[in-house]
Amino acid sequence: MKTNNNKINKPTPTVKIVGAGPGDADLLTIKAYKAIKNAKAILYDALIGREILEYASSNAKLVYVGKRAANHSYSQEEINQLIVDYAYNYGAVVRLKGGDPYIFGRGHEEYDFVSSFGIDVEVIPGITSAIAVPALSNIPLTKRGISESFWVLTATNKKGKLSKDIQQAVKSDATIVVLMGVGKLGEIVRLYQQNGRGELPIAIIQNGSLRSSKTVFGNINSISKIAKESKVGTPAIIVIGEVVATQPEFINEYVIARNEAIS
Amino acid sequence: MKTNNNKINKPTPTVKIVGAGPGDADLLTIKAYKAIKNAKAILYDALIGREILEYASSNAKLVYVGKRAANHSYSQEEINQLIVDYAYNYGAVVRLKGGDPYIFGRGHEEYDFVSSFGIDVEVIPGITSAIAVPALSNIPLTKRGISESFWVLTATNKKGKLSKDIQQAVKSDATIVVLMGVGKLGEIVRLYQQNGRGELPIAIIQNGSLRSSKTVFGNINSISKIAKESKVGTPAIIVIGEVVATQPEFINEYVIARNEAIS
Repeated sequence: MKTNNNKINKPTPTVKIVGAGPGDADLLTIKAYKAIKNAKAILYDALIGREILEYASSNAKLVYVGKRAANHSYSQEEINQLIVDYAYNYGAVVRLKGGDPYIFGRGHEEYDFVSSFGIDVEVIPGITSAIAVPALSNIPLTKRGISESFWVLTATNKKGKLSKDIQQAVKSDATIVVLMGVGKLGEIVRLYQQNGRGELPIAIIQNGSLRSSKTVFGNINSISKIAKESKVGTPAIIVIGEVVATQPEFINEYVIARNEAIS
Repeated sequence: MKTNNNKINKPTPTVKIVGAGPGDADLLTIKAYKAIKNAKAILYDALIGREILEYASSNAKLVYVGKRAANHSYSQEEINQLIVDYAYNYGAVVRLKGGDPYIFGRGHEEYDFVSSFGIDVEVIPGITSAIAVPALSNIPLTKRGISESFWVLTATNKKGKLSKDIQQAVKSDATIVVLMGVGKLGEIVRLYQQNGRGELPIAIIQNGSLRSSKTVFGNINSISKIAKESKVGTPAIIVIGEVVATQPEFINEYVIARNEAIS
C-alpha cells in the first residue's frame, strides 16, 4: 500500500495516538474508548488485550503491528509509514499502544512523522504500567515520610546494555521503577550492593494488571535467589525503595528470605 | 457522625480509592466511571471537575473534603475517619482523588486506615498529571536517543522546604518533572546553575489538561524572566530536560528568550 494524496473519494485523514493502559480493558480511558469505537482502522501493538479490540466497530480494519510478530517484525519506520497510509485510505486511524504512548512508547516519533504530512494528530494519554502495576499490587511509589519522588527507567538502552541512568538511580533516594529489567536483575543487584544498599526492599511484579499477577518481595541481597526459586518471569516490573516495605505482605516474604539466607 | 458497626439495616461497607485523572472528564477510566456511577457516597477532593461528579447517581451523597475548603480544612485523619463512617452508613463509597491516588495523593494511608477496619478496599489507578500534562503539551518524558528515564518530584517536602530529592535530581540525566514547583522556581534554577546546567531546556505548563492551558518554554537561565513576563501561575507542572526541546513550538520561544538575554 502506498501513500495516496489523491483526495477524490478519500476520507479526511486523522490520527489519534492512544494509550491503552496496563492491560485491563476497564483501565482504558473514556476518551480512548470513544476513539477506538469511532476508528476506521486501528494499528495495534503486542500486549493489547482482545477485550479492548472488541470495542472497535465491526467494520473497522484491525492491523497488528507488534514487534513480536512471528513472521514479520515491523521496524519503527514501517509503522510510521503504515499509520500515514491507513489515514489516507481509511480516514480516522487509531494507533493503539500499551500503557501511555509517550512513556518508552516511541509515540512522539509517530506524532512527528504523521504531523509532517499535515495530518491532524492527537495524543490520548493512557495509564502507564510503571505506575498502575505497583498500585494494583498495593505498593505506593510515593508515601509521606518515606519517599518523596519516583524515577522510572528501562533496564537497557537501545543497544541492549545496562542503561547509564541506572548507575545514577542506585544512589538516589527516589523510589526506582525498572521496566523490562528481570533479565538484568543480577547487574542491578550488583550496582546496589556496590553502593552499600543491600538491605533496600525490592519487589518484582509479573503480569501486573492481569489475574495471573504474581508479586515477589525481598531485599537487594536476597532477591536474586527469591526470583529464581519463585520462577518469576516476564513481563515484569521491578520496584526498589523503602515504600516496598509498606505493602502488607512484605514482612513475611522478607523474613522467609532472610531465614533462608541464614540457614 | 460516629463509626457504627451495627449491621442491622446497614449496607455492606466497601471503599474504592479512585484516581480521577488530570481533570478532563474523558480521561477518567471506564473502571472509575463505573465505580462513581454505582457509589452511594463520594468523598471528593479539590480539582475534581463538575463533569466527573455528574456521572454519580442522582441519589448519591457527594461530600467535598478538599483541603482548600474556605470554611473548614479537613486533616488527613479526619478524611480517613469520614471514609470509614460513610462506608458503614452508606455502603459503596468512592474516595475520589485527582490524578492517581498513589502518586503524592496519600491514597495509601487511606487504604491502610480503611482496611484496618476489615472493610473491603480497592484502589483504581488514574492518569497522573505528571505524565498526562506534558503529553497533552506534546512533550514526551522519554525519547529514544534523548532521554531514557523520567523522575517525578514535588518541589517541597512536608515542611514546605525544597525537597532534598531535587538536589540529587539536578545532577541526573533523567527528564525531571516537578509538581507544585512554581513557587520554588528561583531555588530550582539556582541549583541547576550551580551544577553548570543553565542551558537545559525547561517548560512550565499551567492548567495542563484544561482548555485554558498555557505552556511557556525557556532554558534554566531564561525561565525566571519568561515565567514572570508571561504571568504563568498555578496549578502548574515543570518539565526539565532535553526532551522539552523536541516540542515543535520550543525553538521560537527559546530564540526569543536568548535574544532578550543578549539585547
